[in-house]
Amino acid sequence: MSASTRDVLTLDKSSISQISPYIPQPGVHHPDSPDDRPHVTLTFATSLDSNLSLAPGVQTALSGPQSKAMTHYLRSKHSAILIGVGTAIADDPSLNCRFEGVGGYGGKGVEGQPRPIVIDPQARWQWSAESKVIKLAREGKGRAPWVFTLVEVDGERRKTLESVGGEVIIAGAQPSSRMSWDYILYELKRRDTESVMIEGGGAVINDLLTPSNIRFVDTVVVTIAPVWLGKGGVQVCPDEREVGGNKVPIARLKDVKWVPLGDDVVLCGVAPRH
Amino acid sequence: MSASTRDVLTLDKSSISQISPYIPQPGVHHPDSPDDRPHVTLTFATSLDSNLSLAPGVQTALSGPQSKAMTHYLRSKHSAILIGVGTAIADDPSLNCRFEGVGGYGGKGVEGQPRPIVIDPQARWQWSAESKVIKLAREGKGRAPWVFTLVEVDGERRKTLESVGGEVIIAGAQPSSRMSWDYILYELKRRDTESVMIEGGGAVINDLLTPSNIRFVDTVVVTIAPVWLGKGGVQVCPDEREVGGNKVPIARLKDVKWVPLGDDVVLCGVAPRH
Repeated sequence: MSASTRDVLTLDKSSISQISPYIPQPGVHHPDSPDDRPHVTLTFATSLDSNLSLAPGVQTALSGPQSKAMTHYLRSKHSAILIGVGTAIADDPSLNCRFEGVGGYGGKGVEGQPRPIVIDPQARWQWSAESKVIKLAREGKGRAPWVFTLVEVDGERRKTLESVGGEVIIAGAQPSSRMSWDYILYELKRRDTESVMIEGGGAVINDLLTPSNIRFVDTVVVTIAPVWLGKGGVQVCPDEREVGGNKVPIARLKDVKWVPLGDDVVLCGVAPRH
Repeated sequence: MSASTRDVLTLDKSSISQISPYIPQPGVHHPDSPDDRPHVTLTFATSLDSNLSLAPGVQTALSGPQSKAMTHYLRSKHSAILIGVGTAIADDPSLNCRFEGVGGYGGKGVEGQPRPIVIDPQARWQWSAESKVIKLAREGKGRAPWVFTLVEVDGERRKTLESVGGEVIIAGAQPSSRMSWDYILYELKRRDTESVMIEGGGAVINDLLTPSNIRFVDTVVVTIAPVWLGKGGVQVCPDEREVGGNKVPIARLKDVKWVPLGDDVVLCGVAPRH
């Protein structure tokens, strides 16, 4: 099944040249990447008041069409893209890459298609043969997802996933209901995942930005739209950080570049090593 | 008393040419200005998580030196600058303009100096002859403030203010402890104030961005610094807006321009008329 022209996304060369230093290039070791785990790019789009959406579970149109093309360009450069279970349930996301030249969209096979990773400790996501990500894998327009859980997943659901090449990965016996980034990233590296783009949602992003976890982030690509959503939204605002009894900023990005893109701006930066 | 060179701020011509369409030019009616009140420019600097500071009353270094120069450029183009009582108490702010060529900083008299306006419904601000804004007015390096209150201010404090040319403005009998923007802006217009730049703090900004007040805002200049401050800060996040029972965005800016400035970005835009 070939992609219609309508589906294929492109991005101007100037934007690509500004953003590309902040993302890993397949086969090349990025200077800010670690050796013992995949390169982690944290990426999301917020409003001016740092909201991802108007309310939990509500998909909100924030950024413009060029930002969407940029997201798919980023996806084409990563081995995997990772989301939390909340986003999987709320959005029924495609999690593939529709950038021009990538497998299924002008390219062959699934070349350039990232591996979708869903973090789902309690196996709440009830995927089926009709879930977008499963359908796209079946059609050869995306890879099949790996679902990280802490509990067993029943036979039928598991079979649906495995029939398209996906996998349930039981993340060992964990002391809490939270999965450790250490474990997830170690497991991804062990499976030859060179880079992972972490896309959301709010719980995953805020967890990665907590003072104890931000060391797992290498580079950041944040899109900001010129809109205020107001209170009650899903907000990116990490837990406080204290040093010597004083409240201090969580993190100031280094090597910063701001790239205007349509009505939005894209912030690229390198995360600090605390 | 002349200003030392160290005090004088300058900004590159490219930044000025990008920002100037969004601010009123003295003597020229801005296309987005109303006739019945001053042009209102809302301006402030936040972190990525939309915080103005780490905690209430804590001054936080967010934006870089070029952003400071830009703020003073903006001040040079407005008849008045307005802050809330919280900022007056916490920061002991100068509220003058140190941009090159403005009165006291290369220019004559107080030409180009904006009028400081402090909104202080309960007259909590205990200014004295040692307050920076009073001292600068005495030295001819800034105008004396107008303090809007709902209650009478005692003789000695009042005399200190009036001795440098300032004024206490009792904003009439009001039903609540909040002052109405209608009244404040009407009163400023009556006093030949053509434009006012509203700088903060959090209470004033959030109040102006509430769905019922955003109509008072004409243009917006927001600086964003590439840092997360975390929970517990003073955050810009307006009250929710509903239309027909559905939550909707507060406001999407029009005619948007993003201007990278050092490590920060400056967002310029026109507020929508709801």
